[in-house]
Amino acid sequence: MKIDVLPVFGDITEKQLRGKLAVVFDVLRATSTIVTALANGCREVVPVLTVEEALAYAEDHPDAILGGERDSLLIPGFHLGNSPLEFTSGRVKGKTVVLTTTNGTRAIRRAARGSAGVLIGSLLNIKAVAEEIAGAGYDVVMVCAGTRGCFSLEDTVAAGMVCRELARTVPGKKAPLLESDFAAAACRLADFYSKDPLRALYDSLHGQKLAARGFSEDLTFCSRLNSAGIAPGYRHGRIFTVPFTVPGN
Amino acid sequence: MKIDVLPVFGDITEKQLRGKLAVVFDVLRATSTIVTALANGCREVVPVLTVEEALAYAEDHPDAILGGERDSLLIPGFHLGNSPLEFTSGRVKGKTVVLTTTNGTRAIRRAARGSAGVLIGSLLNIKAVAEEIAGAGYDVVMVCAGTRGCFSLEDTVAAGMVCRELARTVPGKKAPLLESDFAAAACRLADFYSKDPLRALYDSLHGQKLAARGFSEDLTFCSRLNSAGIAPGYRHGRIFTVPFTVPGN
Repeated sequence: MKIDVLPVFGDITEKQLRGKLAVVFDVLRATSTIVTALANGCREVVPVLTVEEALAYAEDHPDAILGGERDSLLIPGFHLGNSPLEFTSGRVKGKTVVLTTTNGTRAIRRAARGSAGVLIGSLLNIKAVAEEIAGAGYDVVMVCAGTRGCFSLEDTVAAGMVCRELARTVPGKKAPLLESDFAAAACRLADFYSKDPLRALYDSLHGQKLAARGFSEDLTFCSRLNSAGIAPGYRHGRIFTVPFTVPGN
Repeated sequence: MKIDVLPVFGDITEKQLRGKLAVVFDVLRATSTIVTALANGCREVVPVLTVEEALAYAEDHPDAILGGERDSLLIPGFHLGNSPLEFTSGRVKGKTVVLTTTNGTRAIRRAARGSAGVLIGSLLNIKAVAEEIAGAGYDVVMVCAGTRGCFSLEDTVAAGMVCRELARTVPGKKAPLLESDFAAAACRLADFYSKDPLRALYDSLHGQKLAARGFSEDLTFCSRLNSAGIAPGYRHGRIFTVPFTVPGN
């Protein structure tokens, strides 16, 4: 199995995705929030690009919960922001969540163009994502959402942790082969932060900005390695957990 | 002092360089070769972009030594390739070396556009570069040459090592402030490889390719931390060592 890690989603070409399983990481906070909402019993998450798209969806589906952020803050008229702590079982169980964020939802939609399938990754579900990848048997491209078009430490660390988990659990001829120096660097960074993933979030400029805005609890929550045993998948505009199987398997 | 690290030189804007001291790293092998040639008494290195430019220079300066590579190999009609081991005192002492390489010489010329000055960095001269930076008092942008337009592990590790050296030696209010997550990641990678820098070169795909082509000794040579006590600078088309002072200081 070949694995690559891409530092930012903006430059991805369809060629890089073709026939591969994409895993999207936006640890602070979109993919952590999606994983949390689904782990708390939400029926599905619909990632949309604009506030208008979210409001239009809600007109047709009055039961939908609107969540998301612009510049890390709640969007006027929305039920919830982009903090995973808001997506409790009481609020989202059985519901459809419509989510729009600055980076993460865009990265997910972008990764779907041309890829064989898209998984949602975060520090919360490293093992579950690695298991889904190992079962699917595709080559993999890990897509870091990044921050404002640049490298982000936390997404790269999470991608590296999935690579390490695969190296540990998939033996022999199928063992993952890293396709780039950036993938190798992601693994080294994952090594460094594996015993203290919260430190990666505080070493990240976006993490520091969130903490300064009062979201320290979000950082703590988003750093809880393998607290969720699910590997959500995106298909036809929706993210869901069960049953999710990569097409063709 | 603010420090940033840029993963590849191709995307740099003049705005990113303006008023800053740039340090260019192409560890495998252009900047290691330049540092070695100058440490061995070469008078100056003239980095040029094309083979034609090098040959034209040699017509006007028959004593000049032509060095460089295309796809890691010797260029027909040139005296030397791009291996630092070739740039011995016997061959280069007192001479002008004209060098053209796929990435490194381009990165140097690119970093000069708009910056306050350009230093030549490698694993061989981490401490000397950090001392020059500390003395100059400018904000710094570390420019990794990269490999074929992509992130390269060895350049990022070397840039991180200079950041670490500055953090260790420049105390108090002037202590370096990392401007991006990528700079933070470079420091972590430098931490990881500081006890075994040769491992970084073998973890790099370009290092593996060079080793497969018979250049293993180059990797060993290029990994010798602080074996050269010089911080060469580029100005007006030439790279030289003494006297080099950043303009304005």
